[in-house]
Amino acid sequence: MSWEEKVRKVEPYVPGEQPKFSDMVKLNTNECPYPPSPMVEQELKLINEQEFRLYPDNEASELVHALAAYYHTDSNRVFVGVGSDDVLAQVFLTFFTNGQPLLFPEITYSFYEVWANLYKIPYKKLPLTEDWHLDGFTNPADQVGGIIFANPNAPTGIYEPVSYVEEVVKAHPDCVVVADEAYVDFGGESALPLTEKYDNLLVVQTFSKSRAMAGMRIGFAIGNEKLISYLKAVKYSINSYTMNTTSIRLGLAAVRDDAYFKTIVGKIVETREWFKKEMAALGFTFPDSMTNFVFVRHNRVSGKELYELLRTQNIFVRHFNDPLIDDYLRITIGTREQMERLLDFLRVYLG
Amino acid sequence: MSWEEKVRKVEPYVPGEQPKFSDMVKLNTNECPYPPSPMVEQELKLINEQEFRLYPDNEASELVHALAAYYHTDSNRVFVGVGSDDVLAQVFLTFFTNGQPLLFPEITYSFYEVWANLYKIPYKKLPLTEDWHLDGFTNPADQVGGIIFANPNAPTGIYEPVSYVEEVVKAHPDCVVVADEAYVDFGGESALPLTEKYDNLLVVQTFSKSRAMAGMRIGFAIGNEKLISYLKAVKYSINSYTMNTTSIRLGLAAVRDDAYFKTIVGKIVETREWFKKEMAALGFTFPDSMTNFVFVRHNRVSGKELYELLRTQNIFVRHFNDPLIDDYLRITIGTREQMERLLDFLRVYLG
Repeated sequence: MSWEEKVRKVEPYVPGEQPKFSDMVKLNTNECPYPPSPMVEQELKLINEQEFRLYPDNEASELVHALAAYYHTDSNRVFVGVGSDDVLAQVFLTFFTNGQPLLFPEITYSFYEVWANLYKIPYKKLPLTEDWHLDGFTNPADQVGGIIFANPNAPTGIYEPVSYVEEVVKAHPDCVVVADEAYVDFGGESALPLTEKYDNLLVVQTFSKSRAMAGMRIGFAIGNEKLISYLKAVKYSINSYTMNTTSIRLGLAAVRDDAYFKTIVGKIVETREWFKKEMAALGFTFPDSMTNFVFVRHNRVSGKELYELLRTQNIFVRHFNDPLIDDYLRITIGTREQMERLLDFLRVYLG
Repeated sequence: MSWEEKVRKVEPYVPGEQPKFSDMVKLNTNECPYPPSPMVEQELKLINEQEFRLYPDNEASELVHALAAYYHTDSNRVFVGVGSDDVLAQVFLTFFTNGQPLLFPEITYSFYEVWANLYKIPYKKLPLTEDWHLDGFTNPADQVGGIIFANPNAPTGIYEPVSYVEEVVKAHPDCVVVADEAYVDFGGESALPLTEKYDNLLVVQTFSKSRAMAGMRIGFAIGNEKLISYLKAVKYSINSYTMNTTSIRLGLAAVRDDAYFKTIVGKIVETREWFKKEMAALGFTFPDSMTNFVFVRHNRVSGKELYELLRTQNIFVRHFNDPLIDDYLRITIGTREQMERLLDFLRVYLG
């Protein structure tokens, strides 16, 4: 075998593009249109570069404690990582590499399939219902290696009630069930309380959307102490120090400003509901989103075509080259002004 | 199988402790005793928290370009990660999971064995020579899955010349060879130029030691474009955005200030050479270190005993519970004042 034949070869996830134009309307990667809390600004000013010569706290204790306090749980039930993608990658390696098939929805966050392939995890994609709700996860089944779903789901935006999550966990006591709640703050109710009742449920969230901190790379998982300790053992077998000094300090500041967090989330939800009405009036159809994006289609223009057209206007939205959903566009909810600019263009183009 | 039987169970790496006492002398995790470049301080002041709402550049291009320019190479030959541990974990997964045994030294960075176990990579530890030089790596051998060694080696501090690295690579054209050069800036010559000549050699370095940025978590690998692209495919199959906004910006500032970098490295080397003489005068023996630490033993007091004793003085050094080296202590080179405080204590205790 040559050295090249000995290499692990994978097809990576393709993230949304990160264009940098001064006049662009960036609605393609579900970032928050508002800056982080003013407390983050204050904390940033207090950071002294002299600290950087030392390793950070490998347990990121201050951030972990702040999250535990915020979610009324114990610190040993909280795990943090470099964005929820880092947390999820470690979740896949820790809980799903047992040889039995992992279950996830046919339409969902496309990174799940990439992680499964990377770690050679067999998997089954469960088709959604006709109206795109999760389906089949509540059926008891033997020989299931694990379950993961996004709730609300992406890119559909559809939310399943906590009672559904509980049914899934009840039907699968013999594997770890992961609820990826990246978008839950925009209207859903978290399954976090269920982690007190079920040992095998892990809830994953992120600072990249509702907490306006995509640039700082912070994600976390909450579950029973045993789940978290297995996850920590894998984390400490990969990289002792994942969270750098600034992400610990600034993440902590963001968690502490709950009033600001609720204000910006409230504004995004308000904009989303108004935007839905405007889009419906233009003839767009879409599932009822509980996230900071809307997944839309129009029967007179293809998703791909509209995506290209919007690019010419410096308006960036997300299009997926997947035959199941290629009629659709995923549009992040930005500021009211950004959405107006998009709507103005669509009104002229379609009208 | 219960959910717990389906979990991947591992024995993690145990990093050196990170005590936080105001009056301590911290010589246990090979950090730099000097702060990062004043250009890092300036850049920190220019960071605007408004940027944090957006994802960072997933390619960390500015940092990658700066490293490429510094090392006179192309950007597509550079890979960055969250400390060299993050880089190395991805190197193990990408290049060493081919089923054939990985070779590394019997005494070396103990994380190699942890990564091998995590990814279920078979391995052979090659014993060092009697005077602790690398041995056996230049022997041609079939069925080798990969090779990794630290040069200078840790915790011995011993450096092998670039000609030795070249012999290793020549003897093993059919697997990837990784030179972990975390400490090379303190007196060694890097094998980087060899990566232009050999496709299967990868060199890994870090900002945590000579660049005084352990807290920012920045490491990098340089090798031929094909090696780097395989590594990137795995990276993009784990986490699209690993380097946060601050690590990209501040890492860039650190690379740009070459004069400062050379000044602090020069001071550390000077302190090390003086410290070696003082320790020899006290009856300590040690290999000739080319790093920012010295690996010492004394025939009148055990490593463990001395470690405990120094702790009572708020002086932290590293002791390893490995029968091959448990007589030794690894002592980081701090400031001259820190080393004086250690020496003062040792003079009284031993004298």
